[in-house]
Amino acid sequence: MGVLAYLSPYLGFMGLGVAFLTYLAVQNRPDGDEKMQEIGGYIYEGGMAFLKREYRILAIFIVVVFLLLAWKVAWQTGVAFVSGGLCSVLAGLFGMQAATKANVRTSQAAKDQGEGEALLIAFDGGAVMGLSVASLGLIGVGIFLGIFNDPETSKYVNGFAMGASSIALFARVGGGIYTKAADVGSDLVGKIEAGIPEDDPRNPGVIADNVGDNVGDVAGMGADLFESYVGAIIAAIAIGATVSGSAFTDLGQSKVTASSLRSSLMALPLDVAAIGLIASLMGIGSMRALKTISPQLALRYATYLAAVAFLFFALILVWGLGIVHAVFWAVASGCIVGIGIGRITEYYTSAAPVNRVAHASQTGAATNIISGLAVGLESCVLPVLAICLAIFIASYAAGLYGIGIAGIGMLATVGITMSVDAYGPIADNAGGISEMAGLGPEVRKITDGLDSLGNTTAAIGKGFAIGSAALTALALFSAFTQAVEQGRGTPLQIVVTNPYVVIGLFVGGTIPFFIAALTMTAVGRAAGLMVEEIRRQFREIPGLLEGLAGARPETARCVDICTAAALREMIVPGLTAVVAPVLMGYVLGAEALGGMLAGATVTGVLLALMTANAGGVWDNAKKAIEKEEIPGEKKGTEAHKAAVVGDTVGDPFKDTAGPSMNILIKLMSVVALVIAPLLV
Amino acid sequence: MGVLAYLSPYLGFMGLGVAFLTYLAVQNRPDGDEKMQEIGGYIYEGGMAFLKREYRILAIFIVVVFLLLAWKVAWQTGVAFVSGGLCSVLAGLFGMQAATKANVRTSQAAKDQGEGEALLIAFDGGAVMGLSVASLGLIGVGIFLGIFNDPETSKYVNGFAMGASSIALFARVGGGIYTKAADVGSDLVGKIEAGIPEDDPRNPGVIADNVGDNVGDVAGMGADLFESYVGAIIAAIAIGATVSGSAFTDLGQSKVTASSLRSSLMALPLDVAAIGLIASLMGIGSMRALKTISPQLALRYATYLAAVAFLFFALILVWGLGIVHAVFWAVASGCIVGIGIGRITEYYTSAAPVNRVAHASQTGAATNIISGLAVGLESCVLPVLAICLAIFIASYAAGLYGIGIAGIGMLATVGITMSVDAYGPIADNAGGISEMAGLGPEVRKITDGLDSLGNTTAAIGKGFAIGSAALTALALFSAFTQAVEQGRGTPLQIVVTNPYVVIGLFVGGTIPFFIAALTMTAVGRAAGLMVEEIRRQFREIPGLLEGLAGARPETARCVDICTAAALREMIVPGLTAVVAPVLMGYVLGAEALGGMLAGATVTGVLLALMTANAGGVWDNAKKAIEKEEIPGEKKGTEAHKAAVVGDTVGDPFKDTAGPSMNILIKLMSVVALVIAPLLV
Repeated sequence: MGVLAYLSPYLGFMGLGVAFLTYLAVQNRPDGDEKMQEIGGYIYEGGMAFLKREYRILAIFIVVVFLLLAWKVAWQTGVAFVSGGLCSVLAGLFGMQAATKANVRTSQAAKDQGEGEALLIAFDGGAVMGLSVASLGLIGVGIFLGIFNDPETSKYVNGFAMGASSIALFARVGGGIYTKAADVGSDLVGKIEAGIPEDDPRNPGVIADNVGDNVGDVAGMGADLFESYVGAIIAAIAIGATVSGSAFTDLGQSKVTASSLRSSLMALPLDVAAIGLIASLMGIGSMRALKTISPQLALRYATYLAAVAFLFFALILVWGLGIVHAVFWAVASGCIVGIGIGRITEYYTSAAPVNRVAHASQTGAATNIISGLAVGLESCVLPVLAICLAIFIASYAAGLYGIGIAGIGMLATVGITMSVDAYGPIADNAGGISEMAGLGPEVRKITDGLDSLGNTTAAIGKGFAIGSAALTALALFSAFTQAVEQGRGTPLQIVVTNPYVVIGLFVGGTIPFFIAALTMTAVGRAAGLMVEEIRRQFREIPGLLEGLAGARPETARCVDICTAAALREMIVPGLTAVVAPVLMGYVLGAEALGGMLAGATVTGVLLALMTANAGGVWDNAKKAIEKEEIPGEKKGTEAHKAAVVGDTVGDPFKDTAGPSMNILIKLMSVVALVIAPLLV
Repeated sequence: MGVLAYLSPYLGFMGLGVAFLTYLAVQNRPDGDEKMQEIGGYIYEGGMAFLKREYRILAIFIVVVFLLLAWKVAWQTGVAFVSGGLCSVLAGLFGMQAATKANVRTSQAAKDQGEGEALLIAFDGGAVMGLSVASLGLIGVGIFLGIFNDPETSKYVNGFAMGASSIALFARVGGGIYTKAADVGSDLVGKIEAGIPEDDPRNPGVIADNVGDNVGDVAGMGADLFESYVGAIIAAIAIGATVSGSAFTDLGQSKVTASSLRSSLMALPLDVAAIGLIASLMGIGSMRALKTISPQLALRYATYLAAVAFLFFALILVWGLGIVHAVFWAVASGCIVGIGIGRITEYYTSAAPVNRVAHASQTGAATNIISGLAVGLESCVLPVLAICLAIFIASYAAGLYGIGIAGIGMLATVGITMSVDAYGPIADNAGGISEMAGLGPEVRKITDGLDSLGNTTAAIGKGFAIGSAALTALALFSAFTQAVEQGRGTPLQIVVTNPYVVIGLFVGGTIPFFIAALTMTAVGRAAGLMVEEIRRQFREIPGLLEGLAGARPETARCVDICTAAALREMIVPGLTAVVAPVLMGYVLGAEALGGMLAGATVTGVLLALMTANAGGVWDNAKKAIEKEEIPGEKKGTEAHKAAVVGDTVGDPFKDTAGPSMNILIKLMSVVALVIAPLLV
């Protein structure tokens, strides 16, 4: 292993240190008046209560799977699995701690210090999550690879990725159901039935709604990117460990020996991740200088700066390792395509497509829905072509190993990408708190601006998460085939003319559809429970709807209902993803399982893009009408009502079903990778 | 070739003769009073005008492709291509002639003779289409295989399938856009803006709407099933011609020689199709006896009777040919799974799912849409598993050849399946004519009953079309790989770990999404033109809306607008499907093209199922509310309005985007098969 790879855990601890300092800096900011503190406290408690109950359920799952792994695969894999799960949990806890502190402080800064400082606090709150994800990933993978550092034992580390993936799927599905059940439930009764504004303190569901932003977009997204990051590194190492024959010699420069080339191939993934963390720290640091320019440009430049620094370091790194220089192009293709997909996603949820859907709203809800679905379907084309371009360049440069490296290239700067992404829900919360605490229109204007930017960063982040999930899943898939081959001693031919592979393709392709149906139905059910509860409170608590002084909503009950419903509903989709590959592998064999992974990856990526972008475009079409950007339309017109229908349909699309897809495809692949030794 | 295979063209001519006699029988029925004759005449002329203009555009396409094929592939392939296109056109013309005569006569019979006779006429009208499809398929394929009957030259026959497919895609996409543009446009202005009933003679779009039912569901569906039928036969023959090695000997019984086994393998597909036609004739004939029981059971029993007779003949056939008897299981698996998928589709567009969506309408349009989409997504699971079961049994019984045979097993009784399917739009038209001609509530009740049954048969037919398309595409895909292998002399390994195959999978998987987006947007645009024209007529023609005696709508202009728009909009999706496989094959090679076909088949089948069933469930949820089957709800309530939104969204789903998918995946595969010799 290279020096950097050895150092990576230390680098990870350093990153965690910076995250802690950032957290302290956020916490030391003023947290407003008593009312704000009270609201902030509710959100904090609601978020933590959800995580605690979620983790309690997941603990059972982790123990069961640990025992199964220790029994059937290897105890080392089991230990790695538990560690991967724990690191994901820790990242989620750290990030949530920071996010639920930063929200109220962002409101206060918007009141006292203006936009620049408010932006910085929200960003810093997100940066704690971003740095925790990257640092814990480096620490965990680095330590395990330090222990299991030869091609024989490195397979135990796969358990780490599986642990991270399992937690991620439950967190994403559970968080996604929570956030949308709370959102849709509160809106249906509050905004539509009772006619009170969004985030009105009289609405009993409003705290749950704000908690939902955190558990969905902070904890859920963090777990998602954590597992992509870890999965990409581990997959690339696994491919590096098993690359053989001509592919192997092709990757080395003439001057290096075979054994040093092998260790370089296994070290490079961690090295690339390590320099990515350094570059992310640079980007995060640069926000202090950038905060004076417009928030949108500040976030964008910070991301670009980190990417440029990362590519520069990567160039030097590849140069020094004795691997062919073409490998750099694999790194670069991943990094650039990741940013490119984000920009494409941004286009489809703004500009002309939004205009098209907003205008379609003028002929009613049906045309709004049709045009939004059409935008979503169409928006798959360019991102998929971009992913294919990355695959083409990376595999041309370095074969399958290149695809793994491209995945890391995309994810290495996750520290900054995740920071920008987690900024969104914090700004959203800050807006909600400003409204609930009655901070006035001036403050609301700043937080609205930051929130609206958060929608853009969320769209970019979703595109990025999908792109990285695709490459990670492919890399894990390659690692799976090589693991089976190594065990069998003969090539694993996942040939599309093999009927079992065809069956695998079809069944795999159907699973994302099934999971999407399950999660969307779950949101409907959970939202229904919220609706009943909020209606009950408006009916039974005297003076609540009229806003009398002593009448207080029982927000904790709503939080409780959402939590229970989300946790109940996450179980079937989560288990499906874990059990399906195992079943397929045991019943029809490794070839069918390979087909299943390929099918699930293709439809998973497509459904993820479709749902994310359709949801985004509906959301923004509604906002465009509300901002009176469409001639003759404004809040309350028929077109606006039609656009609200689209927005409501888009909610479970973009925040529940869509994000589940990313993890689904990675989790299925990593489960296959872990059970590969049993399928020989 | 076997005796039956030699006889198949004659059998086809016989079938065509029966179709002609059926047509005469329909035509000799009384066609009502002057008003009915006039309306019937408009629909007839509108439908024929559309077909003529469509075929004129397609003639250019056919000539260009013929020249390209003759230049690059072989002139024989080019001739077969033109013949395949012509047979599809003829089937469309025959079917449309009969359907547009049967509609008005069904109305008249409902008035004079009651339900049983009305059912019989509508069914007979559909049977002309059903028999034309099956007979022309047998004639065309039979003649070409009679000429090119050895393994060397049989590849020219692939052109026939390509011709059928090309016409089918344009007919399906064009017809689908036409029917929904007319439907949505007429409803938006007539039912919603002007508040007049559906099929009201004052509505200028109402003739176009009735024409649309014919061009979409008769001509479009006919072309679709014609190409599945032809494609399945040709693919199975192509596989039979190239089966080699152990797979070859595995298929023969010990007593037969290699050369007689080869000719049996090549004859069986045509033989199976031939007995299927005989069985279909028996089923169609049985309707005369069955018409006295309920219409639903009559149609179902006629289908089952044909299936049972077919399986009995198939058993005898396989017994006699010297092929292993297991091949019979391949035939049976296709036949039974085809019926099974139809029943699953029927469940998802009736019963509990409809109830679920209808209840979701009570909380608004958004929940109606979400629950309908969830039903659509979920409804993919069982049909895909059924298809996988057929693949498993068929390939277990007879390898890849078995999959081809299973496809024919599903399609052999297309004569009766298509008849039942084409019955639907005729009954729908009869209802419209009864309303326009003011035949009174008694007649309307009969035609409404027949129409509502037509919705069920349409749902079953769609499921069947998707299932058969999946098997046909797979068989064509296998034939493609074997054609490339034969040309290269080495195996074509479409291995999922090859990056080019991965790129192919992703790009292929995206194409159905892209085509769905294109067609759905096209419906919106075309419907917009209709809305403008109908509004203009209501505004400018004095007394039209009030129903004054002299005021007549200019229905021909609406027919014209729909025709022009549909033909304009069908070009891009059609060309995409033809050009994409050629481009992929030339740029990235046969492996990538193989991946592309696999990807497109998986997502195409899934999207087809999803859109068809979501559309069906929305439609029926609205009808359930209108029939007051949901407590407290009826026409005009808020829940009904919400359900109308879902129904409108479902229209382009189930009648435009969805049906295009079937043909898309077959066309792409058959194009690949035809250009296979160029990719070696």
